[in-house]
Amino acid sequence: MANSPSGDSLISRVVRILETFDTDRSSRSISDIARRTGLPASTTHRLVGELAEYGLLERDERGNVHVGMRLWELAMRGSQALRLRQIATPFMEDVQAKVRQHTQLAVLEDDEALFIERLSDRNSGANITRIAGRLPLHASSSGLVLLAYGEHELQQRVLDGPLVPRSAETIVDPDALRVKLAEIRSLGHAIAPGYIAPESTGIAVPVRVPGGAVLAALSVVLPREETRHESTILLLKAAAQGMSQAMRAQQSISH
Amino acid sequence: MANSPSGDSLISRVVRILETFDTDRSSRSISDIARRTGLPASTTHRLVGELAEYGLLERDERGNVHVGMRLWELAMRGSQALRLRQIATPFMEDVQAKVRQHTQLAVLEDDEALFIERLSDRNSGANITRIAGRLPLHASSSGLVLLAYGEHELQQRVLDGPLVPRSAETIVDPDALRVKLAEIRSLGHAIAPGYIAPESTGIAVPVRVPGGAVLAALSVVLPREETRHESTILLLKAAAQGMSQAMRAQQSISH
Repeated sequence: MANSPSGDSLISRVVRILETFDTDRSSRSISDIARRTGLPASTTHRLVGELAEYGLLERDERGNVHVGMRLWELAMRGSQALRLRQIATPFMEDVQAKVRQHTQLAVLEDDEALFIERLSDRNSGANITRIAGRLPLHASSSGLVLLAYGEHELQQRVLDGPLVPRSAETIVDPDALRVKLAEIRSLGHAIAPGYIAPESTGIAVPVRVPGGAVLAALSVVLPREETRHESTILLLKAAAQGMSQAMRAQQSISH
Repeated sequence: MANSPSGDSLISRVVRILETFDTDRSSRSISDIARRTGLPASTTHRLVGELAEYGLLERDERGNVHVGMRLWELAMRGSQALRLRQIATPFMEDVQAKVRQHTQLAVLEDDEALFIERLSDRNSGANITRIAGRLPLHASSSGLVLLAYGEHELQQRVLDGPLVPRSAETIVDPDALRVKLAEIRSLGHAIAPGYIAPESTGIAVPVRVPGGAVLAALSVVLPREETRHESTILLLKAAAQGMSQAMRAQQSISH
C-alpha cells in the first residue's frame, strides 16, 4: 500500500520524518529533514506539506518545520503514557517533596527504558534523563529494574550484548550483570552508582499492575555524595505501592 | 499521493483513526474503529496493522487497539508542548503549592483552548479540564484570555457564533462577550464564575513570550464558594512573569 519505488511505505517515511525531531532539535528546515531521512527533496516537501495540512507538523515564518500541537494532542489524549502518568503523578510528588532531586517514571520500549515523566527541583543536581527520552536497560537504575523483572528473552538479548559502557562504572560484563539482576529481584530495588554519569546515583523500584506484572520503574537520581539510600528506597516502595492501589481502584470503577 | 478512490489521503485516514481514541476511550476494537471512521473494514485492518508495525498503535492480547508508546514518544520529544511545559512546570508548582486546587496551562489550537498541563491536589474540587483536552474559548477562563489577546479575525469568528452555552452562566450574547474581552485586556486577567460548571470558578492570566505576544493562558480552577480571587490573581501574574523570564533566559542560552 502506498509504497514508493524503493519499497518503503508512506507510514515508514512519515516515521522517519518525525524521528528527525528531538528535544535538542525541535525545528528543522525541509532540506535538513530530506538529508537526515534520505528521502528525495520533492518527496520530503510533499509529505511535510501534507502533514502540515493536518497540523501534525507546523511551519514557522522562516519555513522551518516542527512537530505540531495537533500530533501531540492525538498521541497524548488516548495514550497509556498519559493514563499511567495521571495515576503516578500524585505519588511521584510525594517522593519529590521529600527527596527534592529528580523523580522519574520509565517503561520498557524496544529494549530500552523510555521515560514518561520526570519531576525536578529547581536546585536539583545533574540528570541526563528527559521526558520522552531513553536510557539503556543495563546502565540506568530504571532500566535495570525493567530488565530484572523482564522476560527471559529480553534478558538474553541484553546479556548477549554488546553492553555499551555509559561511564567507567557501567556494568559491561554479562556475568556481573546477571548477578546484579538477581540481586535486584531479591532486594526489590536497584542502585546504580555512577553507571550513567560519575556524579549521580540512580535508585529505582518496580511499579506493578494489580495482580503482579511489572509495568514501570519509579526512580530518583541523587548526587553521588548523597547517602540517604535506605530512606529513599522506602519512599519509592511506598509510592510504587500507592500507584498499584490507585490502578486497582480505577479498574474497579471502570468495571 | 496515496489517495483512495474517494479522494482522501492516507494521512487523513491515519488522522481519522487516531481521532477515535481519547482519555475516556483509550482502547477500541478494529470493527469499532472502522465504524467510527467510516473506513472499510479491510482498509482499517490494513492501516491499523501497518501503524502497529511501527509501534504507532499497539494491540493487546484481546486484539483491541490503543495508541502506541512510540507515537507518544515521537509526538512528545520534539514538541513545543513539552518545551513550554518544562519551562512552565516549576512556576505552576509554585502556584499549586499555595492554591492546592487545579493549576493549568492552555494554548490556542483550532479556535479552542488546548490544555497542555494540569497539576491537581488529591483533594481538589471538581474540574472538567484534562491534559490534551480542549474547552471553548468563550466559556473557559483560559479560553477567554486567549481570545481577548487573540487576533481580530479569531475574535470575529467566535463572536459570529454560535456561542454555545456550557452552563446557565456561560456568556452567549456577543455584545456581553465583547465587553468581557475588553475588561480582560484592561485588567490583565479573566474570571469565569460558573461559565463551564456551576460549582467552579476559573481564573486565568496571559503568559507572554519575551517581547510581548500571548503564548498561553495560565489558570486555576477554584470551588465556587472560594473567594480568594485577588491573592490568586497575584500568584498567577507572578508565575506568568516568571515563565516569560525563563523563556528569555533560555533564548539567550541558545543564541
